[in-house]
Amino acid sequence: MSETRALASYIVESDYDRLPSDVVAEARRAIVNYVGCALGGCREPAVDIALDAFAPFFGQATAGVLGREERMDPLHAALMNGISSHVHDYDDTTPGNYSHPTSPVASALFAYASANRVSGRDFMHAFILGFEAESRVANAVYPAHYDVGWHMTGTAGVFGAATAIGHLVGLDVQQMVWALGLAATQAAGLREMFGSMGKAFHPGRSAQNGYGAALLAAKGFTAGERGIEGPRGFAAVTAKTYDLTKITQGLGIDFDLRVNTYKPFPCGIVNHPTIDGCIQLHEAHQLATGSVRSVRLRVAPLVLDLCNQQNITVGLQGKFSVYHGAAVGLVCGKAGLGEYSDETVNDPEVKRVREGTTAVGDANLSEDQAHVEVELADGRSLSIFVAESLGNLKRPMSNAQLDVKFRDQAATVLPSAAVDRLLEQCWSIDMLDNVGEIVMGLEVI
Amino acid sequence: MSETRALASYIVESDYDRLPSDVVAEARRAIVNYVGCALGGCREPAVDIALDAFAPFFGQATAGVLGREERMDPLHAALMNGISSHVHDYDDTTPGNYSHPTSPVASALFAYASANRVSGRDFMHAFILGFEAESRVANAVYPAHYDVGWHMTGTAGVFGAATAIGHLVGLDVQQMVWALGLAATQAAGLREMFGSMGKAFHPGRSAQNGYGAALLAAKGFTAGERGIEGPRGFAAVTAKTYDLTKITQGLGIDFDLRVNTYKPFPCGIVNHPTIDGCIQLHEAHQLATGSVRSVRLRVAPLVLDLCNQQNITVGLQGKFSVYHGAAVGLVCGKAGLGEYSDETVNDPEVKRVREGTTAVGDANLSEDQAHVEVELADGRSLSIFVAESLGNLKRPMSNAQLDVKFRDQAATVLPSAAVDRLLEQCWSIDMLDNVGEIVMGLEVI
Repeated sequence: MSETRALASYIVESDYDRLPSDVVAEARRAIVNYVGCALGGCREPAVDIALDAFAPFFGQATAGVLGREERMDPLHAALMNGISSHVHDYDDTTPGNYSHPTSPVASALFAYASANRVSGRDFMHAFILGFEAESRVANAVYPAHYDVGWHMTGTAGVFGAATAIGHLVGLDVQQMVWALGLAATQAAGLREMFGSMGKAFHPGRSAQNGYGAALLAAKGFTAGERGIEGPRGFAAVTAKTYDLTKITQGLGIDFDLRVNTYKPFPCGIVNHPTIDGCIQLHEAHQLATGSVRSVRLRVAPLVLDLCNQQNITVGLQGKFSVYHGAAVGLVCGKAGLGEYSDETVNDPEVKRVREGTTAVGDANLSEDQAHVEVELADGRSLSIFVAESLGNLKRPMSNAQLDVKFRDQAATVLPSAAVDRLLEQCWSIDMLDNVGEIVMGLEVI
Repeated sequence: MSETRALASYIVESDYDRLPSDVVAEARRAIVNYVGCALGGCREPAVDIALDAFAPFFGQATAGVLGREERMDPLHAALMNGISSHVHDYDDTTPGNYSHPTSPVASALFAYASANRVSGRDFMHAFILGFEAESRVANAVYPAHYDVGWHMTGTAGVFGAATAIGHLVGLDVQQMVWALGLAATQAAGLREMFGSMGKAFHPGRSAQNGYGAALLAAKGFTAGERGIEGPRGFAAVTAKTYDLTKITQGLGIDFDLRVNTYKPFPCGIVNHPTIDGCIQLHEAHQLATGSVRSVRLRVAPLVLDLCNQQNITVGLQGKFSVYHGAAVGLVCGKAGLGEYSDETVNDPEVKRVREGTTAVGDANLSEDQAHVEVELADGRSLSIFVAESLGNLKRPMSNAQLDVKFRDQAATVLPSAAVDRLLEQCWSIDMLDNVGEIVMGLEVI
């Protein structure tokens, strides 16, 4: 059986009650993290602009966007949720394939559920399947696909959204094959967009396009039967080398939700060990303003490949600057949303330390590691080696840490009682009768 | 200056009065051909299904689809026009890059013009620029991009639609750079979809997504500055080898509308010399039912790469079968829309001849050439060598032949007086005060 059809069959025949309970628990964590990120990002200019640009084209106002009061059709809502939830680069990451897997899937699902009654159980089932399909497609083409310049979150994301919505609308196997094919032929998203609003557009558009693929397939719109593995299918066209066994091997037994990670800092994940180390130095030595003279970083080579911007003026660029990460860690002792604002990027002390930072690539370091050396104004020097960065698989964020992250972001748009209630709903999402309440019932500040 | 910015500057600063008159004349031919194809395809199941699937999501009913009575928002109308106009594989082709260039551009433009007052002059200006931008992007990455499996009509098409709509809405250079970047990051479409409805979906989605890219850019949604030429931009990511000079060289002097071609037959263009030769044999020898015993074809190797399906049962598959093309040429003496119906594909005599046809690739033949050898039931054998196929650059379809093709297709949805009037409007499109009349004023049968 072809990989596309095998995957489609698995999705269609999946039984919720046979999903391992640890996978369901991890899915709850992913949802808590996602909803927090969507709320934290929902008032960013990228979202405002996209709403403004597409408002004249909105269909019937049946759906909503997490944290926004506008109402629209669910396809546009999926787009907006996707932008919101990724705009701070604060959402989850599967380190095995460098994708941000929840955003495309959950963005489509919350949009769908805001307009159609969906039980928490069905929602979770669709989410787990969408996440898994997307991540398996990503695994099959990683790393060649990523290395050449594709943004996996866009390219694999569309498969996840098609799977999740396809499952909710009850596609049969043939329809699911078409939905995956229509996803494959819409797979897009270039890393050249990093540092612009175009990056957050990727999970949004993939959520919207995957949702559309499922709608088309449900009505009988045909696609190539071998969208993933065919000679001109997704894998062969977008990756010099790929391994299709990763799509089917262990289906129903192995789940990539088990290898998902949550970010403690709202920036490119490869900067995290550096930031982590710098915050530790700040805390251990109570570094005061003016105390840092210069900083030397040794990091995995990929860090400089992705995050080598030093001369920056806007918050968004800070996310792609390991120098900025080091500076806010040392100067501010934290790296939350506020440390990636335009204001902080242009803060004179942050700028001074950022510009006094140098970085070299070291192939002996993994992408979870960093070595930080700080020369202080008083002549002392400090150093730290981070062997495992907070938030990675070996040092995962706890549920309590996820709560803090959620509250910090949700508080930007919700009164505190609503934050509490929403957090509770997210942790028990599989018990809800109607998931759409999470979106449509929110009263924002 | 980067290629993306150079192209954006050219588009923004273009002066309609300085466009060469032969290019404007060729643009009229492209529009006549396009509108005919859109009408010929607008009642196909792929269009019905897409309308049905997306109707619940339609925005305000300000726009229309060529030949259909439904009203919807212009973004969805762009999608539907794109599917209609490509569904028969009857639209134009630039042989230099194997793309079908008019569909993505004109599909977006007619959708826009159906909802917004646009003069014929502005419409034509935007069309010519969109066509040119798209074709230059395609030239830069051809053939590596096509060879690996991308469907150029989808991947390059989105640039054309973004350019055309971006020009109409008056983007400045920076906004046009973003629109091209947002096009680059939505470029998609796999050749694995050939033979399914997914193929016609490509120009539709690229029209819709390019239109959306222009809307976003107009409101200030940012993209990477080097969407085409950056190290992780469209060219580097989607083609092993590429030549960026093809984007900028001769801008404003050389126009790819001069190397555009129109199809006499509604199927993959590589089948055309075979069909042409078979029709010539049918006419010269008045071949009766049962008279053909077997057929041997010698064709360019790419023909067998693309159109090697022999055991087929539905009309759509016939478009990708050089055997079917040979059979209808010999049996029916023509190859119009009717020869690619399910009925004709299953006609016993057509099936018999199709199954009695063999084909071999011959690297000495160009893709405009074919050698046909027919063994007749009475023992005679006939042969013909087609050196230049009708419709190619050296044997272009005349305006009169385009009229016949237009009328044949338009008559499927319009009363004959309306066909005459519409044909007249298309030939003088640049004189119209309001191009939208072409879409919104049609009274279909």
